[in-house]
Amino acid sequence: MAETFVIAQGGGPTAVINQTVVGATLEARKRFPGARVLGALHGVRGIRDGNFVTLSELSEEELRAIAATPSAALGSTRDKPDEAYCAQVLKGLEAVGADAFINIGGNDTSGTQAILRDAAGGRMTFMHAPKTIDNDLMESDHTPGFISAAEFVAGAFLSVDLDFRALPGVYVGIVMGRHAGFLTAAASTWAADEASGPHLTYVPERAFDRTRFIEDVKSVLARHGRCIVAMSEGVSDGSGTSLVESLVPPEMLERDAHGNVRLSGTDLGQAVERMLAEDLPGQRARVDTFGYLPRGNIATINDTDAREAFEAGAFAVASVEQGDGSVALQYNGVRTEPKLVPLEAVAAKTRHMPETFLEPDANRISAEGLGYLQRLVPRKFEVGRVFV
Amino acid sequence: MAETFVIAQGGGPTAVINQTVVGATLEARKRFPGARVLGALHGVRGIRDGNFVTLSELSEEELRAIAATPSAALGSTRDKPDEAYCAQVLKGLEAVGADAFINIGGNDTSGTQAILRDAAGGRMTFMHAPKTIDNDLMESDHTPGFISAAEFVAGAFLSVDLDFRALPGVYVGIVMGRHAGFLTAAASTWAADEASGPHLTYVPERAFDRTRFIEDVKSVLARHGRCIVAMSEGVSDGSGTSLVESLVPPEMLERDAHGNVRLSGTDLGQAVERMLAEDLPGQRARVDTFGYLPRGNIATINDTDAREAFEAGAFAVASVEQGDGSVALQYNGVRTEPKLVPLEAVAAKTRHMPETFLEPDANRISAEGLGYLQRLVPRKFEVGRVFV
Repeated sequence: MAETFVIAQGGGPTAVINQTVVGATLEARKRFPGARVLGALHGVRGIRDGNFVTLSELSEEELRAIAATPSAALGSTRDKPDEAYCAQVLKGLEAVGADAFINIGGNDTSGTQAILRDAAGGRMTFMHAPKTIDNDLMESDHTPGFISAAEFVAGAFLSVDLDFRALPGVYVGIVMGRHAGFLTAAASTWAADEASGPHLTYVPERAFDRTRFIEDVKSVLARHGRCIVAMSEGVSDGSGTSLVESLVPPEMLERDAHGNVRLSGTDLGQAVERMLAEDLPGQRARVDTFGYLPRGNIATINDTDAREAFEAGAFAVASVEQGDGSVALQYNGVRTEPKLVPLEAVAAKTRHMPETFLEPDANRISAEGLGYLQRLVPRKFEVGRVFV
Repeated sequence: MAETFVIAQGGGPTAVINQTVVGATLEARKRFPGARVLGALHGVRGIRDGNFVTLSELSEEELRAIAATPSAALGSTRDKPDEAYCAQVLKGLEAVGADAFINIGGNDTSGTQAILRDAAGGRMTFMHAPKTIDNDLMESDHTPGFISAAEFVAGAFLSVDLDFRALPGVYVGIVMGRHAGFLTAAASTWAADEASGPHLTYVPERAFDRTRFIEDVKSVLARHGRCIVAMSEGVSDGSGTSLVESLVPPEMLERDAHGNVRLSGTDLGQAVERMLAEDLPGQRARVDTFGYLPRGNIATINDTDAREAFEAGAFAVASVEQGDGSVALQYNGVRTEPKLVPLEAVAAKTRHMPETFLEPDANRISAEGLGYLQRLVPRKFEVGRVFV
């Protein structure tokens, strides 16, 4: 019996999100001969507005080329559908005769699938396939998109550390991560030894203190002659006030229409530069905001990440007969495998980096944290002898 | 007859500067059996202070590993020796019995070699081997270090453009380049077509106008729904005032001990963010400062760049019998080859990007500019079909 599948991508793109689309499409073709697979343009917005491409009509060669391309070939959306919007999405799904809707995204996306499931009354199946560079979905050991972004960050910090061995100073790399510090922690993955940077890591999970930060930097400078710092965009002072709010003069803060402070990595970067210039005058220091560079970089698409993202999409399709659910990547100590979990287990929940991934008395990634990161992103490059 | 060679690295490191050191060392070993090759730690500072490593004692395997490692394994320096400092460097060279000194760096380095040559009175040979990500040395078609940095920038902008097709908005990537726009121009190298970003490029060679910038962005947004901008850190308004000076409130500007405005990519980034927020209110916009990321990134070491850097070092050693000079990479329409040119031809001179590399009436790289960039950095990745 022919089936109609709808696939959509939501939220920030990653290097491997197209692998999930193609994994799902090829599995549908294999498991449900004659199945129609529709890709919605710009996520749920495309379903609401009736904008689709027929993925099932593409050749395998074309699909594989799309799979290997970073970012979201179907486009994405930041729309967070409320009940009214969901009703329109449901109408859109019914209009194309969808039997199953696979929505690829973060925890918000799992929540959207739950709302749709409740409104649809069993008439179709709702799957959530995981995706995020933040690695912050419950139930999963890690998430598609994270490993490639982590590989970029690991290589960048290894390289910058070498740069600062040649011309010493202080370097702060600001990495995306509003709520979870995993991607920032990835900066340490390929550090060769204790003396290699990053020497300090600051993540959202631990309250940031300016005085402590400056002491940390001074201490590292005294010991190594240079200091490499990895810092999350989402660091805050623990009171709910983000670091940029506490450091930037009120009249300089950008606010949106609701009066909420607009946080940008560049704002934080400049605030950190200012902090260093005031508290360590004369000390050579550089701050860069990685921003979007790690999240879909074509040079650092990781093979394991690509394969797992593909498998997550294929598994979503293979699981439709089991009913609604969220695909989680679970690690059993030996290998990573997709499993189906309830949508509610993932929806609206954020996994934070474990406290044990940080050393208790130092702002550094612990051995446990490094073990996790190095399992996911094994060393790829050897470094020759450096004399300074 | 055994020779003593001294090698030093100066200025900002690159992905391939160690190739030049090792190319020189292996050529010395081959051409002058028994030769002693000393690497100075942290450039001319190491010569002045008597800090060397004996590169000629390292195995070929170890040397090859060093060659493949980005950044300066011997350390580098930003010291710009005046005559007094040069006298100390000369003493240091004499103390180790140097017959030739190969100094790897930018145009300042060539100037240093000229001063030393004049002071040494023919007692030893002074070679300059080229190195810079800015691609701004006279006499050379391109410089070692540029191609790898350009590859990073090309891949990053290709990737970010795909990201912004998925979630449209305005993106500004700020790329290093105080005086020359070559590295910023490299952002366009792998753009698939007219509609692909970067859509706008702003370089030091062309005066920046805020009103024109905003008009440009609005025009691109109207046409493509998104706008990707590549901007050099060194853009200025043409009056000698850098962009950041003209945009940042005076009390917010960082000044050094001499009262000079301290320019950082982050300052410029925030100034641009502010400009966009004021002149395009409500428009989603993101600004990232690439900073040091392109200059020694281990994931984007380009093979051609590595080979040419190695050959430049080997050629420097092979040329000592001809006398003092600067190694230039010259392109004859078919291949790139090292040539020896006078130190003065390179010293204290900056090559700017030709005006013809920009379209006359648009802030975009011209066909001529693209031809140059694509010759140096051929396309490495294919991009599959994108539906948005």
